[in-house]
Amino acid sequence: MSEPEFRPGLADVPVAESAISFIDGKRARLEYRGIAVEALARESTFEETSWLLLKGALPTQRELALFDRDLKQNRSLKYRQIDILKCLPPSGHPMEALQASLAALGMFFPAKEDAWESILHLVAKTTTLVAAFHRVRHGEEALAPREDLGHAANFFYMLTGKEPSAPVARVLDACLILHAEHTMNASTFAARVVGSTQANPYSVISAAVGALSGPLHGGANEEVLEMLDEIGDHSKAKAWLEDAIATKKKIMGFGHRVYKVKDPRATVLQELAEHVFTETGRPAAYETALSLEAAANTLLGPKGIYPNVDFFSGIVYSSLGIPRDLFTPMFAMSRVVGWLSHWTEQMRHNRIFRPEQVFTGQRDQPFIPLEQRP
Amino acid sequence: MSEPEFRPGLADVPVAESAISFIDGKRARLEYRGIAVEALARESTFEETSWLLLKGALPTQRELALFDRDLKQNRSLKYRQIDILKCLPPSGHPMEALQASLAALGMFFPAKEDAWESILHLVAKTTTLVAAFHRVRHGEEALAPREDLGHAANFFYMLTGKEPSAPVARVLDACLILHAEHTMNASTFAARVVGSTQANPYSVISAAVGALSGPLHGGANEEVLEMLDEIGDHSKAKAWLEDAIATKKKIMGFGHRVYKVKDPRATVLQELAEHVFTETGRPAAYETALSLEAAANTLLGPKGIYPNVDFFSGIVYSSLGIPRDLFTPMFAMSRVVGWLSHWTEQMRHNRIFRPEQVFTGQRDQPFIPLEQRP
Repeated sequence: MSEPEFRPGLADVPVAESAISFIDGKRARLEYRGIAVEALARESTFEETSWLLLKGALPTQRELALFDRDLKQNRSLKYRQIDILKCLPPSGHPMEALQASLAALGMFFPAKEDAWESILHLVAKTTTLVAAFHRVRHGEEALAPREDLGHAANFFYMLTGKEPSAPVARVLDACLILHAEHTMNASTFAARVVGSTQANPYSVISAAVGALSGPLHGGANEEVLEMLDEIGDHSKAKAWLEDAIATKKKIMGFGHRVYKVKDPRATVLQELAEHVFTETGRPAAYETALSLEAAANTLLGPKGIYPNVDFFSGIVYSSLGIPRDLFTPMFAMSRVVGWLSHWTEQMRHNRIFRPEQVFTGQRDQPFIPLEQRP
Repeated sequence: MSEPEFRPGLADVPVAESAISFIDGKRARLEYRGIAVEALARESTFEETSWLLLKGALPTQRELALFDRDLKQNRSLKYRQIDILKCLPPSGHPMEALQASLAALGMFFPAKEDAWESILHLVAKTTTLVAAFHRVRHGEEALAPREDLGHAANFFYMLTGKEPSAPVARVLDACLILHAEHTMNASTFAARVVGSTQANPYSVISAAVGALSGPLHGGANEEVLEMLDEIGDHSKAKAWLEDAIATKKKIMGFGHRVYKVKDPRATVLQELAEHVFTETGRPAAYETALSLEAAANTLLGPKGIYPNVDFFSGIVYSSLGIPRDLFTPMFAMSRVVGWLSHWTEQMRHNRIFRPEQVFTGQRDQPFIPLEQRP
């Protein structure tokens, strides 16, 4: 075997064999276990898609019913788990609260817990932790989960105290489906690296949340809204874009390393968002986004730069009254399924990650005692 | 450039350019910034070695005095930070408590905190968090740090309420020096992957603790003691080893991926431990260890298998009355400096880790609606 060369960021370097998801950037196709993500967003639920990702195939009717029941039964937090959230500074970022509380969660369960038990706890309780921290940081009591609601609708209820309408529940469910998995990326890779030491899955998912918290990874949909705020009005979108291109300003929510056409997730999310907006009215940010997209189709389309999923998800969340700093925690609530699918796969043929470095430093230096130094 | 091949665990694949540490396995040499680790363990302090690793050169007298003062001033925890530890289940592993409390710690400081400030908080407070969790899990109050003690001695004081003797303080200081850095490994790599997203350093170090918590990474010195317990008496060491070799049982604390001679850290640690044992008397576990090493020199030495650092550190900690489940947290207290050195280096020429996968799954599957499934 030849000596591998150093590639910053491990660009193009394979780090795992994986059967979970696949992206065909030219065809704008993202598949979970072979199934197009648009079909899942339109016809499946987050619960069903989670089983598909975790287990490798769509569940039978009975499997889905049991999985749904198990998730519901694992949603609630113990008082002491909520007490931890109450000790955290309310001004801290909810991603840090999630990273901390997930690591703490593992302490409540036996070290040798069955992997599937851990998966149920993590998928079910991550959502509850996000909603509960949001309430306690505002001095409100955490709301107990409701077993009569699906995963996405129950999250909205635990967050706001209100039951979502059917189109709102649908668009939230679709958002969770669309963010659940996306091949190898920094947080998924972090989950594999930490998992490769045989750390417990709570430690693994906590670490992955840490990776997602970085502004280069999660958080783009927050920045889309800030950009739309800056543009101010849909009539100014084209002029803003021309200026942004001329001054090489970063245009948020556009372009993707892999997709050279419109992100398939953006297309389906926009379609479902329209259903919500017929109910609530189109938010001003969405009008601005549409004008920006129209201008970008002419100015950026020829370069293969089109809207990605982040372009619309923030607008949807914001229109539902969800605060911006919960957008990335909601991403984590969904991606926890992808991380756990990769963790499960990694554990099946595990080898600890112990890579090499290119040493660029000095060798064979003497130790000079303190009294002989300036 | 040729297509990189898939190497499980990224064995031999360079993931970073680094000037921090270097291992020459054949010469049994480990260098921090070019300086042999034995010289540092014998002549330096953890504080001085930390500066060396973090900044790249030994400090001047004034730099060291200021660094020492800054670390001392950053040791203490706020009441609310200790309250978090009190909410954690006392039965949980201290590594999980550390992972959780480090992520939580970041919430107390501004998001755009100066990197050096974060480094001071993390190096100083990780030690306090380990000691404080140990006390609160036993229903005792956390002890405030003492500014008249060095880093290692103050840890012993915060843990036990007793000031260590000079040889004990010395061996603890040496242990911290010897564990501070060891080129690329799973936890250091996890710190780089998480850091590459520009996550805050508290999230980065919390994630690295998660990686170290895995039994394939940290924790070997705990297992050495369990092995010595199993052997029972020094007179049985040779027979136990012969049986272990014949039945292919795992022999803990021996052998190393890189070192093909006795780990230089083991040699110096043993030497310093002897000073402590002249004071306290040789523990039975150490007698057993010596007999085991003598037998292994004959039986395993020709294969290049010799004691590593874990072989002696657990015996030292145990002889000081430190419980076994704190051995890996003490490793973390020390390695936090190595992680932060790598994080600092990564931030200087950062590129987000976004590697590739080898896709082994199915493509182009239809979505079959639930009612059409069994």
